[in-house]
Amino acid sequence: MTSGPERDNPERAYVRAHLDDLHADLDAWLRIPSISADPVHASDVAASAEWLAEALRRTGFPVVEIWPTAGAPAVFAEWRSADADAPVALVYGHHDVQPVDPPERWVHPPFEPTRVEGPDGPELHARGAIDDKGNVAFHLLGMRAHLAATGRDTPAVTVKLLVEGEEESGSPHFADLLRARADRLACDVVVVSDTGMAAPDVPSAVTAMRGLADAEITLRGPAVDLHSGSFGGAVPNPLHAMAHLLSKLHDEHGRVTLPGFYDKVRPLCDRERELMRRVPFDERAWLAGPAASRVASGEEGFTTLERIGARPTAEVNGMCGGYTGPGHKTIIPAEAHAKLTFRLVSDQRPEDVGPQLRAWVAANVPPGIEAEVHTPPGGVAPCASDLDSPAMGALLRAIGQAFDTDPGDVLFTREGGSGPEADLVEVLGAPLLFLGAGLPTDRIHSPNERVLLPMLHRGAEAAAHLWRELATTRLR
Amino acid sequence: MTSGPERDNPERAYVRAHLDDLHADLDAWLRIPSISADPVHASDVAASAEWLAEALRRTGFPVVEIWPTAGAPAVFAEWRSADADAPVALVYGHHDVQPVDPPERWVHPPFEPTRVEGPDGPELHARGAIDDKGNVAFHLLGMRAHLAATGRDTPAVTVKLLVEGEEESGSPHFADLLRARADRLACDVVVVSDTGMAAPDVPSAVTAMRGLADAEITLRGPAVDLHSGSFGGAVPNPLHAMAHLLSKLHDEHGRVTLPGFYDKVRPLCDRERELMRRVPFDERAWLAGPAASRVASGEEGFTTLERIGARPTAEVNGMCGGYTGPGHKTIIPAEAHAKLTFRLVSDQRPEDVGPQLRAWVAANVPPGIEAEVHTPPGGVAPCASDLDSPAMGALLRAIGQAFDTDPGDVLFTREGGSGPEADLVEVLGAPLLFLGAGLPTDRIHSPNERVLLPMLHRGAEAAAHLWRELATTRLR
Repeated sequence: MTSGPERDNPERAYVRAHLDDLHADLDAWLRIPSISADPVHASDVAASAEWLAEALRRTGFPVVEIWPTAGAPAVFAEWRSADADAPVALVYGHHDVQPVDPPERWVHPPFEPTRVEGPDGPELHARGAIDDKGNVAFHLLGMRAHLAATGRDTPAVTVKLLVEGEEESGSPHFADLLRARADRLACDVVVVSDTGMAAPDVPSAVTAMRGLADAEITLRGPAVDLHSGSFGGAVPNPLHAMAHLLSKLHDEHGRVTLPGFYDKVRPLCDRERELMRRVPFDERAWLAGPAASRVASGEEGFTTLERIGARPTAEVNGMCGGYTGPGHKTIIPAEAHAKLTFRLVSDQRPEDVGPQLRAWVAANVPPGIEAEVHTPPGGVAPCASDLDSPAMGALLRAIGQAFDTDPGDVLFTREGGSGPEADLVEVLGAPLLFLGAGLPTDRIHSPNERVLLPMLHRGAEAAAHLWRELATTRLR
Repeated sequence: MTSGPERDNPERAYVRAHLDDLHADLDAWLRIPSISADPVHASDVAASAEWLAEALRRTGFPVVEIWPTAGAPAVFAEWRSADADAPVALVYGHHDVQPVDPPERWVHPPFEPTRVEGPDGPELHARGAIDDKGNVAFHLLGMRAHLAATGRDTPAVTVKLLVEGEEESGSPHFADLLRARADRLACDVVVVSDTGMAAPDVPSAVTAMRGLADAEITLRGPAVDLHSGSFGGAVPNPLHAMAHLLSKLHDEHGRVTLPGFYDKVRPLCDRERELMRRVPFDERAWLAGPAASRVASGEEGFTTLERIGARPTAEVNGMCGGYTGPGHKTIIPAEAHAKLTFRLVSDQRPEDVGPQLRAWVAANVPPGIEAEVHTPPGGVAPCASDLDSPAMGALLRAIGQAFDTDPGDVLFTREGGSGPEADLVEVLGAPLLFLGAGLPTDRIHSPNERVLLPMLHRGAEAAAHLWRELATTRLR
């Protein structure tokens, strides 16, 4: 990673001089095991919200509130610009973290942040180091750098933060919260800080996230588990049926076979494909990582980066049926189950997946087997930034300054994962920007999650630049 | 069920006069929960052996021994015929029972034998009522009826019994026991009493049992469970691979696709098919039973009875992988597992299945997925009776007498299940006969197992006839 001069970059000078503050804040916050999926940790999630509220007050935010929800609390903060007509930016992040299992796979205890010298610089290892406490924490220093560098008492744009506590549990109350607090959250642009960049030395901006639809398929055959000696070979076996059904989920070209699944998919235009091709990506190294795969697979006619970022998918996440304990039980089971998720891209809608899946199952389930398809309401819509908007221009300039790069050289990437970002667009009616300091190698959701500290410093600096750049951008 | 005159059938007269003894014995024995699969019940299995030993002594057997094994004990008894050169028959059965789960599905407590009036006569409901305590218990009364009817002090043939305690756990120590005690067990014919007949009013004899080979397939993809947002659509998913693999286990004609699987299968000759066709079988009613199926399925070109009795099969008994708890976890799992059993017919060998399965998996596993196939040593060989042997003639006459039927009208059936009977043939070198009082509707291995008492009475009578008939049969 390059380190340009600080002379013409007072934001960078301030960040560099105050790294210890950022590190101390993050260290303290990461010690709170705010696992939202585990009810045992509910008080930790509450403590995490309290910690963040206190840190925001200490940073200088005049308005800091903890907003209860039907689940875990969110933190809201607001620092109004003294400038009349200054644009309003809303930072979105979350203060809850993923579970840590399997705990034995962690080299360092997940809630004892540990500094490790890595090949790309110092790393901090802890659950939540980047997802998402690191990405939220850099805004504390970023705001102070913005004020110091510009010599202002209030930010050049009004900055709001909404940091929820249930993102890792599917944000079940987030849309309700947005609707209930829409007035307080009104903004001209949303800055999502829950993503990352392509590589340590590659300034880049996420431009889209995939949506998500869950489904569960149950296949039923015999009334009870049958003795496979007395019945085997003569009655339908739900496990055979499930294998047959799921083997048809993709065609020979790797395309999902649900009827109508691709109807609303926006085709990738040449410019987007060219932009994605510019993203440095060592496919061999990527496959050799946690995927441990010798081969790329997936939809024909698309690159791996396109497959994971820009194309919809169907994945079986879990499957069970019959006897799965030690030894053998010679049964034809009564039932088989599979859990699936579909990743969606613009302009697919999660609510379309249920009817498509039901039609597909009905057409493909073998005779003698009853199928039940459960698709929970909700799901996550895909979302995307406008590549040519003035706000995107401000973001690219801010990132370019933090990386000493021409804004035109900041690359665009796509995030294969899904979050509640589409709700922000829908309820608040504001466009999305993505500014995050994560890396594909940060092991989010896995043991030994880490943040590369130089990336975190770049994030703080980019945030400081962004508030200044947005102030001179026509957003309305 | 017909009830012929007792005048010319002193065995029947004795059985009818002593039904209360049989009922009292069975009631007492069924109260002992001798579940061999559950270590908690080890003392019950031992108590069951003790009960049987005491009952055999009470019946008059001069030699009764409990034979310990590395697992549960077996019971051995012997009553030598006073006649020089009398043939030797060995009765095989077992005194352990299947587990009872799910217990809430039992109408009457499984170890409180309960008499129920059914459409075909009185039934006794309890775990083990027919499998196999009922089938063993009828020999106690059968032996006394034989002696009383023939006016003998010793049976007309030497009768040995070997009643093992681990059949429902796969008889893991049975072959060793046979080899260690081969001298004591020497015999001219084995009478297996662990099967049944086609229907209450249909005298029939089992002529074959299927063999069994177990296997477990593990498919491995990523090194760890992967985030399906970050990797979904671009790396091989072991659950997709398992679905693809298992969807190929049978071809479009319902035939198992393992290479060489059918090579040693003895073709069904016209006479056997004709004999099987004579067995009354209400396919619609059978399918509507526990199978709860509206359709028959399986290998093309064979009837349902042939499919479950005379043809080999492959069944997936269990499958698991990925996240199967409540809600959803958006992963591509590292592994997928499947448990399979293959039912075999003469002259297939269980030890051939492992190499066949390995070759099949290697040829069919998708790229990027590693497969591991585990086939435990052992397995169960298929076995069959000689339809034209003198011993079979004696059995048919005995069954015919018990059912007031011409021996030529006793039907032949095949048992789709598997037991250690092949070991008896191999170690003792004696041919097999099958005499059992079960019915396909007895719900063995399921909740509400029962025995139809008139069938049990027929069993006792047929056993008594059999000892007399075998005495005049050339077996050596």
